[in-house]
Amino acid sequence: MRISFLNPFKRYSQKVGLPPGTLVYVGEERTEPVRITVTAYDETHLHEEEVQTVEACLPFKDTATVTWIHIEGVHDTQIIEEIGAHFGINSLVLEDLMSPTQLSKIEIYEDYVFIIFKHLDSDTTSLNISREQIGLIIRENFVMSLQENPGSLFTPIHDRLKNVNSRVRKMRSDYLVYALIDVIVDNYFIVLEQLSDQIESVEEEAITNPTSEVLARINELRRECLLLRRPILPLRDVLNDVLEDEIPLFTQETSLYFRDVYDHLIQVIHTLETLRSAASDLFDTYTSAVSHRMNEVIKVLTIVATFFIPLTFIAGIYGMNFKSMPELEAEWGYPIVLLVMGGIGIAMFLYFRFRKWL
Amino acid sequence: MRISFLNPFKRYSQKVGLPPGTLVYVGEERTEPVRITVTAYDETHLHEEEVQTVEACLPFKDTATVTWIHIEGVHDTQIIEEIGAHFGINSLVLEDLMSPTQLSKIEIYEDYVFIIFKHLDSDTTSLNISREQIGLIIRENFVMSLQENPGSLFTPIHDRLKNVNSRVRKMRSDYLVYALIDVIVDNYFIVLEQLSDQIESVEEEAITNPTSEVLARINELRRECLLLRRPILPLRDVLNDVLEDEIPLFTQETSLYFRDVYDHLIQVIHTLETLRSAASDLFDTYTSAVSHRMNEVIKVLTIVATFFIPLTFIAGIYGMNFKSMPELEAEWGYPIVLLVMGGIGIAMFLYFRFRKWL
Amino acid sequence: MRISFLNPFKRYSQKVGLPPGTLVYVGEERTEPVRITVTAYDETHLHEEEVQTVEACLPFKDTATVTWIHIEGVHDTQIIEEIGAHFGINSLVLEDLMSPTQLSKIEIYEDYVFIIFKHLDSDTTSLNISREQIGLIIRENFVMSLQENPGSLFTPIHDRLKNVNSRVRKMRSDYLVYALIDVIVDNYFIVLEQLSDQIESVEEEAITNPTSEVLARINELRRECLLLRRPILPLRDVLNDVLEDEIPLFTQETSLYFRDVYDHLIQVIHTLETLRSAASDLFDTYTSAVSHRMNEVIKVLTIVATFFIPLTFIAGIYGMNFKSMPELEAEWGYPIVLLVMGGIGIAMFLYFRFRKWL
Amino acid sequence: MRISFLNPFKRYSQKVGLPPGTLVYVGEERTEPVRITVTAYDETHLHEEEVQTVEACLPFKDTATVTWIHIEGVHDTQIIEEIGAHFGINSLVLEDLMSPTQLSKIEIYEDYVFIIFKHLDSDTTSLNISREQIGLIIRENFVMSLQENPGSLFTPIHDRLKNVNSRVRKMRSDYLVYALIDVIVDNYFIVLEQLSDQIESVEEEAITNPTSEVLARINELRRECLLLRRPILPLRDVLNDVLEDEIPLFTQETSLYFRDVYDHLIQVIHTLETLRSAASDLFDTYTSAVSHRMNEVIKVLTIVATFFIPLTFIAGIYGMNFKSMPELEAEWGYPIVLLVMGGIGIAMFLYFRFRKWL
Amino acid sequence: MRISFLNPFKRYSQKVGLPPGTLVYVGEERTEPVRITVTAYDETHLHEEEVQTVEACLPFKDTATVTWIHIEGVHDTQIIEEIGAHFGINSLVLEDLMSPTQLSKIEIYEDYVFIIFKHLDSDTTSLNISREQIGLIIRENFVMSLQENPGSLFTPIHDRLKNVNSRVRKMRSDYLVYALIDVIVDNYFIVLEQLSDQIESVEEEAITNPTSEVLARINELRRECLLLRRPILPLRDVLNDVLEDEIPLFTQETSLYFRDVYDHLIQVIHTLETLRSAASDLFDTYTSAVSHRMNEVIKVLTIVATFFIPLTFIAGIYGMNFKSMPELEAEWGYPIVLLVMGGIGIAMFLYFRFRKWL
Repeated sequence: MRISFLNPFKRYSQKVGLPPGTLVYVGEERTEPVRITVTAYDETHLHEEEVQTVEACLPFKDTATVTWIHIEGVHDTQIIEEIGAHFGINSLVLEDLMSPTQLSKIEIYEDYVFIIFKHLDSDTTSLNISREQIGLIIRENFVMSLQENPGSLFTPIHDRLKNVNSRVRKMRSDYLVYALIDVIVDNYFIVLEQLSDQIESVEEEAITNPTSEVLARINELRRECLLLRRPILPLRDVLNDVLEDEIPLFTQETSLYFRDVYDHLIQVIHTLETLRSAASDLFDTYTSAVSHRMNEVIKVLTIVATFFIPLTFIAGIYGMNFKSMPELEAEWGYPIVLLVMGGIGIAMFLYFRFRKWL
Repeated sequence: MRISFLNPFKRYSQKVGLPPGTLVYVGEERTEPVRITVTAYDETHLHEEEVQTVEACLPFKDTATVTWIHIEGVHDTQIIEEIGAHFGINSLVLEDLMSPTQLSKIEIYEDYVFIIFKHLDSDTTSLNISREQIGLIIRENFVMSLQENPGSLFTPIHDRLKNVNSRVRKMRSDYLVYALIDVIVDNYFIVLEQLSDQIESVEEEAITNPTSEVLARINELRRECLLLRRPILPLRDVLNDVLEDEIPLFTQETSLYFRDVYDHLIQVIHTLETLRSAASDLFDTYTSAVSHRMNEVIKVLTIVATFFIPLTFIAGIYGMNFKSMPELEAEWGYPIVLLVMGGIGIAMFLYFRFRKWL
Repeated sequence: MRISFLNPFKRYSQKVGLPPGTLVYVGEERTEPVRITVTAYDETHLHEEEVQTVEACLPFKDTATVTWIHIEGVHDTQIIEEIGAHFGINSLVLEDLMSPTQLSKIEIYEDYVFIIFKHLDSDTTSLNISREQIGLIIRENFVMSLQENPGSLFTPIHDRLKNVNSRVRKMRSDYLVYALIDVIVDNYFIVLEQLSDQIESVEEEAITNPTSEVLARINELRRECLLLRRPILPLRDVLNDVLEDEIPLFTQETSLYFRDVYDHLIQVIHTLETLRSAASDLFDTYTSAVSHRMNEVIKVLTIVATFFIPLTFIAGIYGMNFKSMPELEAEWGYPIVLLVMGGIGIAMFLYFRFRKWL
Repeated sequence: MRISFLNPFKRYSQKVGLPPGTLVYVGEERTEPVRITVTAYDETHLHEEEVQTVEACLPFKDTATVTWIHIEGVHDTQIIEEIGAHFGINSLVLEDLMSPTQLSKIEIYEDYVFIIFKHLDSDTTSLNISREQIGLIIRENFVMSLQENPGSLFTPIHDRLKNVNSRVRKMRSDYLVYALIDVIVDNYFIVLEQLSDQIESVEEEAITNPTSEVLARINELRRECLLLRRPILPLRDVLNDVLEDEIPLFTQETSLYFRDVYDHLIQVIHTLETLRSAASDLFDTYTSAVSHRMNEVIKVLTIVATFFIPLTFIAGIYGMNFKSMPELEAEWGYPIVLLVMGGIGIAMFLYFRFRKWL
Repeated sequence: MRISFLNPFKRYSQKVGLPPGTLVYVGEERTEPVRITVTAYDETHLHEEEVQTVEACLPFKDTATVTWIHIEGVHDTQIIEEIGAHFGINSLVLEDLMSPTQLSKIEIYEDYVFIIFKHLDSDTTSLNISREQIGLIIRENFVMSLQENPGSLFTPIHDRLKNVNSRVRKMRSDYLVYALIDVIVDNYFIVLEQLSDQIESVEEEAITNPTSEVLARINELRRECLLLRRPILPLRDVLNDVLEDEIPLFTQETSLYFRDVYDHLIQVIHTLETLRSAASDLFDTYTSAVSHRMNEVIKVLTIVATFFIPLTFIAGIYGMNFKSMPELEAEWGYPIVLLVMGGIGIAMFLYFRFRKWL
């Protein structure tokens, strides 16, 4: 997992030397068929349909209703090429759609806007945070969204569309774009929440049990916090462009909503920076805990050695075999030596107490 | 407590997938009733009243006097909805009011200005610094303030209002806004004062008694200093906007006062950065103290072992049972060996002195 | 001393909740009377007088000569109030004058300019660097300077004024402002000089004798270097404003001089950053010296123990009381064992030499 | 290798004091002949030829077809001088071409544009990343590329040119420039890929076997990541200039392609920063692993010493030669002492278990 | 040496309190006479002359040829004053010329431009990098250069002037300014080259022999790299001003050359930052090497102690004097105990091997 983050270009090298706009899918290998869903709606009507080919979408291309074409899977070169041909999309855009290592960005073409951003998902049982690239192609009354993996990510939007009173039904395609991005940013909150839970649990372990497994997890968390900036930060510039630039496809009416999701993103970024700093402090905590433990071990060694070494020396003295050692002959020699040893022992004990080692 | 800082979105996840503007309270759970106080004043009159419903405020909405509606509690969805309906407030603003994880911000609408900022409070007995979100809705001659918790935060303003000679009575609603923000920034000074007291007390303990409890407190202080930037820093941008932007609701007359509170905030931020740096140095101090202690322990071990190990060896020599060891037979053998041992001991002692270990 | 830096708002909390412009002195308590000196000069005349009241200054207010009123002591609320009344000074300015925790700043009012900056002074015998707030109120042909403490800080300016050929006599009030600031910046050089002397002396001690007192001094120096940015850095912005802004009170003629003092300040700031970095390196040096010492101690322990432990074991062998130990009976047993021990000792010695421990 | 990075000016000092524009080759010494390839193409024709002299290129200078002159080797002063003379190139440009320590840059002259950037190459078997300077001189319908070393770097472009349907054949010289830069940036991905592989392999070794060789490799990787910024980062400014500046030689049509390669470069820079951070963390990991090991060693010492020192003391007691030691006479004395020793041993063992040392 | 860097204002304090423009030399004390060289040249003529007084330069002041007055020594107040008087130079400029602690800067006066920058020189045998201040006063067809110390720094320029075909003879005074600055920047390369050599040699020593002398040198190198930013970085702003500002004395024709020297300076700054980072890593390397050594020492102690302590205990057992110890009587007791000891020794040895300590 971690490897793929540091090295997201493993599969990229296939493409080196090819001319630009060559369509080669450079994500993980996939074989499942691509799923295409067409939704056409306005305030009064809603039509939702799963189609098999790109051609089947064409009747919805230039209608007065808002058309949302959602495509799950970008690994089928033929489908991407057909999209390019039928909807007049530049080949560089198509290439970006098939390369899931893009940074979030917005590109404004004459008759459409192209946005790329990243969906983050973490399964609750493991550390893994997965990234998924979402591409949006936006035209007048028309939104096409392309997602790497099949999944229920945008189901809440579909549900809202079914409600005739929901705001999304009353508004134009730019509001749909907002709603899609809003879902993504909401998911960022959830991912950061799980990350902060992990940081806290690892912190506790770092203090109570600083093993090398904990160090490995700390390293992973540090790297995760670092690498999460990559999918999250550039989205800020995208939203900035939507808010500031004079893109005709985005109306004044929805700018309020984009400002709201922008504010949420800023909160996400603040929190991410806090988590980075906390993950970085984890290492200090771990190091301190390790050095605290070593300290304890050395203290035990010192106490035992300091206590017994002088006593052993005294025993050694009276273990010498000199002919004339008057103490050895003395009747009270042995008990007196034992008493002296006991006295030294007590003195040592008091000294250790005084040093606060015991 | 600390958990909630790193992870302020714990309760946020309830809202994921809901359409924007959905009113759900995402702070700590509360049940107490919401308290609404209406104050209407001008240079000559002052009317202060506690009302039960939002409707009861309506007569004060468009009067020539300045109207200040103060609401303690933002957890009652119905009341917030009524405010939206009666005062024409955007649903995104209402949503922000009920989400106490907002960053400080200012939003300028056609006929009102919306400001959010954070009140900080620390009880003197514990470390805990609590955050509370304050929302302001400002219209011509009209200020509505919304506060999460009941409390006496703005009592000094009420007191000043009762004084017919006070400046606040002579000026318009923008001066009231200034006065409210000034109270908040003054409280920042108090919180930082307590924080700096704690840093100093922990620093002393880190030097004299570097236990792992001290390390935990240092970590807490470091994090506190880091997390305090979040509520404080964005307020600077809010005040900047008030000072720079051409918001008609803020008159030239009060800009002097806003500049004053801005200067205070800059002092707060400077101090916070200093405290962060001091809290960060605490860790170095702790580490040095721990390593100093380990050094002392190892020195004791070394002195004792170095002193007795050679002497014990000599005793071991003369404890051997060889048949022919002439020294053992010699009359002065024992005393001479004792003298030699004493001499070695003195030499050791002088060496330790020379190394400055004793 | 250090406490007051981290916590410069200790006395500030008295003022929380008071309306803005309330005059309360928040510096250290003082009782000495305030000293007021009036100097009026032009190219031909010089009048210098110590007066007792603010009213006594009024005749000098709107004369054609340059008037410099120098006030030592800002703790007397009555005098500050009179200044406000007689010279038409805003109450927020008066409040700032009495709060010595202000950051350096410039404020431009309709008919006067208000500047605050900090004088630094260090007595040569101790570490202490004292801060003192200087306030300037500048009007056409009129400069009022307010200083917290009595002192001879501006004596060189008085001396120069007495010299009829000095440039200050030939120029207007803006040149006097320059001269006052120049004195302050010159003092910064002296303070940094003493600080760098201390850093160098502590560095030497950190290498030769890294006690915990040295650590405490290093911490103090690090903090001092950090805290000195607070009085010094904002003055750069003040001078920038003087140089860039179109303040009519500052003429083109003196801008050359302000640029000169600005250059000096930049040198001060460069040097301060260098000192900060040097003070920060002190900690590394200290840590290395401590660990070097621990290394030495452990090496001594290792050498002694490694030398004697095997010899003691051999002596232990021949101290056993087995009936049949042929070596013990052998005539040359004892000398041979002694020789073997000597040989092992020499081998050890050579090994230690080889490891470069001796 | 590493030396030349820190010190890329080793050979530069030859030139100190010479007037500007003096042509001296300051890269590694070379003797191989310079290879010149001329390619002239448009949508219908393609002419490719290897020529021996610069004069032989002149007929291709001002034709309607696109002319690409590729030169491998910049060490021959005479050839560089002829280029200057025949194509009207400024002597400072010629000097830059022969000094391979230039940073990437773009310079716009009246009738040509000069671009310098760096090719990175790493052979797969060793750590070494080699830098090579590429210079481009761009005129209307004319591109001259100069490369330090002979090599097959631009072979893919030649191949594409042979394909009559390729986009490069249909477009002008600015597209060729894009294609050349695109090849370079693609190679950056490959170099970073190999670097990240090495970081990961060293990280594993740092945990399992932290020898001083590993430390040396960590230092090398840290430095490599630092030094790679030098060839890569300035290219961003070059591309920015191409995209933003109004250079007539770059048409609107190709700006899309330059934006694409710019996006790739941004990805490269992001990845490089991630790798730098990862390489920096390696050092922490190494230090922790070393200190973990030391901890283990000290624990073994402590366990063994703590276990045997008290037992040895007891044996010493009964090795004393006092006349009257009643225990020695007792029949069960020896077995009882052995039992006591065993009991102490078991107690020690339990204590170590309790401390989780075993 | 190092002291003077941290504390470049040692002699500055003489000047505190003096009015601005007071001429006091604040560099190291000097007594040698000042040397003045006048060179007047155009494309056809060259006149070079050493003169004794400033007056002797006056005939060259306003000629059609380019006049270059080079002055070695700025410690003679009288000469500096005469320059001021005869060439109409502002007293603040004169003051700067005599204060060698200035930062590089450019100041544009009505009829002249004043530039200050720093020459760096390192003698090859020691670490010392000396700084020297160079001042330039530039007027129409006139350049005056002032250098602190006598020296052959600008000899290459003189040599080039003697060559009638050199570009400097064909161009105006601004080209001469460029040539002087170019010489300075070329010397920066040489100084950095020597610095990088030292960093590499110290790095090697840090790994093989980390004594406290090495630590001291590392500290010196870190400081040197830090302090070198001071003379080098501000020159970038000077060149920026020359390139961007509309200074009439600098023609369009030479801007190409200034851009070239600017590029060189950027390379110098990049390299300096790399060296700073490398010098900073040295400390980590040193620390690791020290801790590696300590580890080795502790390992030896542990091996020896762990090996012999149990054996010594066994010997102690059979050294006890109990009456009834059947093993002692047994004929094979001694050899069996020796065998047991040998077995334990071999087991230890295998354990150490298993732990990879041997």
